[in-house]
Amino acid sequence: MGAERSFTRGLGKFFAASGGRVLVGIGDDAAVVEIPGKHAVCTCDPTVEGIHFEADTPLARVGRKAINRNLSDLAAMGARPDYALVSVLLPDGMTARRRHSLFQGMRRAAAEAHCRVIGGDVGRSPGPLVVTVTVIGHLEQGLLRRDRAKVGASLYLTGPLGGSRRGHHLRFVPRIREGLWLARQPAVLAAIDISDGLLLDLQTMLEASGCAGASLDGKALPLTRAAHQAAAESSATALEHGLHDGEDYELLFVLAEGAVLPRGGPLPGLARRPIGRICAEPGIFLEQGDGRRRRLKVVGYEHRL
Amino acid sequence: MGAERSFTRGLGKFFAASGGRVLVGIGDDAAVVEIPGKHAVCTCDPTVEGIHFEADTPLARVGRKAINRNLSDLAAMGARPDYALVSVLLPDGMTARRRHSLFQGMRRAAAEAHCRVIGGDVGRSPGPLVVTVTVIGHLEQGLLRRDRAKVGASLYLTGPLGGSRRGHHLRFVPRIREGLWLARQPAVLAAIDISDGLLLDLQTMLEASGCAGASLDGKALPLTRAAHQAAAESSATALEHGLHDGEDYELLFVLAEGAVLPRGGPLPGLARRPIGRICAEPGIFLEQGDGRRRRLKVVGYEHRL
Repeated sequence: MGAERSFTRGLGKFFAASGGRVLVGIGDDAAVVEIPGKHAVCTCDPTVEGIHFEADTPLARVGRKAINRNLSDLAAMGARPDYALVSVLLPDGMTARRRHSLFQGMRRAAAEAHCRVIGGDVGRSPGPLVVTVTVIGHLEQGLLRRDRAKVGASLYLTGPLGGSRRGHHLRFVPRIREGLWLARQPAVLAAIDISDGLLLDLQTMLEASGCAGASLDGKALPLTRAAHQAAAESSATALEHGLHDGEDYELLFVLAEGAVLPRGGPLPGLARRPIGRICAEPGIFLEQGDGRRRRLKVVGYEHRL
Repeated sequence: MGAERSFTRGLGKFFAASGGRVLVGIGDDAAVVEIPGKHAVCTCDPTVEGIHFEADTPLARVGRKAINRNLSDLAAMGARPDYALVSVLLPDGMTARRRHSLFQGMRRAAAEAHCRVIGGDVGRSPGPLVVTVTVIGHLEQGLLRRDRAKVGASLYLTGPLGGSRRGHHLRFVPRIREGLWLARQPAVLAAIDISDGLLLDLQTMLEASGCAGASLDGKALPLTRAAHQAAAESSATALEHGLHDGEDYELLFVLAEGAVLPRGGPLPGLARRPIGRICAEPGIFLEQGDGRRRRLKVVGYEHRL
C-alpha cells in the first residue's frame, strides 16, 4: 500500500475483500488466496493513457479494458480466471468521480468473468494514467499454448477482425468460455489472442512453434462491420484492416491436419471455417480466390494511438 | 505482450523462462506455474520515477527496489516468494544500456530471493519510467497478518529506522527469512513492513486490528546511522527521522503479552527488545524516559521525492 492511503483503504470495501477462497483480501501487505488445482496461470499487462486509450475516453471503459486485456491472455491459455490485482497511477488533478468510474469499470469487468479483485495499490504519478493489472487463474482440462502449431494444421478464429479502434478495443468480451472449451479438445494444437494484429500474432505463433510460414484465405477471413467502415474512411481495404489493425481480442487457434471439432460448445459458426493453414514455405501468404497468391508484409498495430 | 516486441521476446532468454515448477514461462500469453501448497500469497506495487526514485538513480538500483518492495510485502505476511511478473513502461529515448541495467537489477534481486521472473510486458510510455511488479509466493508454517494486534501486546522491530532516503530505500534486503521465522511463532500476533514510516504503519496496524492506541519507548527505538546523519542536516531529530521517514522495509511485529520468542532464528539482537506496546488509550504516545509522555501526530512519508 503506497500513497493515497485513504483511497487505497477504501479499495477493500469497493472490491469486497475476503471470504470464500480469499483468506486475506485487500488491506494487508499481500493477499492470501486458495488456488484451485495445482497450477496457476498468471499474466500482467499495463493500460496506458495515450498508448492504449485516448485522454477523452470514458474511464469506466478504460477500467474495463485494463481488466479484459488480461482476461484475454488467460482465455488464450484455456485458463479460468480467479483473481486480479490492480495497480493504478493517477495523474494529478483527477476528480474523485472520474476515479470512481475507472474502478467501477474494473469491478464490472472482473465480476462478469467471476474474477475477484484481491489486491492492489493506488498512487499518484507525474505522468499519464496507468492501470496495470495482474490476473491469476487456473487450468481445468487442458492447456492452450502458442508454440505447438504444426505444418499442415489449419487456422481458425473465434470472431471477425478489423477496425477495433472504432470502439471494439474498449468493449470486447474476452473469449474465456471459448478458450476453456478449446483447451479440452485434443485436436486443438495451439492458440493466441489477437492483440497486435492477425499477421503479427500469427507470425509470433509461427516463430514460437518453429514453423516457417502460413497461407491465409482472403475470402474466408471474417471481417467486422467496423473493418468496412474503417476502409471507407482510409486508404486501406477492409481486408487490410482485418489483417493488421489488432486489438480484436479474438482467439486464433490451430486445428490438427484433418481434424474436426465436435459439435456443440460456445464457438460461433464462423469459427468452424478455416481461414488458412500452416505451411512449410517461409513467409505469410494471402490466397485471393482467383488463384493468385501474394506474400504479405508482416506489420501490425503498435499500441500507440 | 505489447509493443517493443523484440525486447519483450528477449525477456524469456534474459530471465530463463521455463523448467522446474515453471511449466510455461515468458513468451506465451500467460505463465503456467506450480504453486507449492494450497494457498498463494500475492502482491503488486509500482515503482515510479519521480515518486519512488529520482531521475539520476542508477537503474540497476531501481530494478532492485522494484522487486524488493514487493518481496518486503511478502515477508510481512510470512510468505516465501516463488514468482514475479514485471511490467515496464520505458520513457522515450532510454538507451539499451540503461534498460539492460534496469533488468539486471531486477534479475539479481529476484535471484537473491530464489524468486523466478515468469512473465511481464515491456512497452513505451509518454510518461516517466514505471516498473510494476507482482510477486506470488506461498505459506509454509503460519501466516502474519496486520489485523491481529491486541491491547497489552508488545511491539518489536527487525532493524533500525530512519534516514532511508540517504540510500537504504534502494539497497535494503527484504526480511523474508525473518518473516518466515516469525510466522512459525504462535506468540507473534501481527506484523507489517515499514514503508510509509513507523507511525503511519503502526497506525494502519492499529486500525486494522481495532486497537485504539500504542505507546512507544523513545529510548528503545533503534535508529540507523543515516537517521543521525539526516538529523545533522535537517531541523528534525534522529528520533523524528526514525518515526516518520519510512521506506525502512523492516518488519514491525507484535508479541502476545508476557510471551518471549524462542532462542535462535534469524532475528538480530535488537529485535529482542520491545519498542513499545499496544494500549487501550486512543492515540500514539512517546515515552521519553524521564517519566514524560507526549502524544505524537501521525504523519509519514508520502512517497514523493
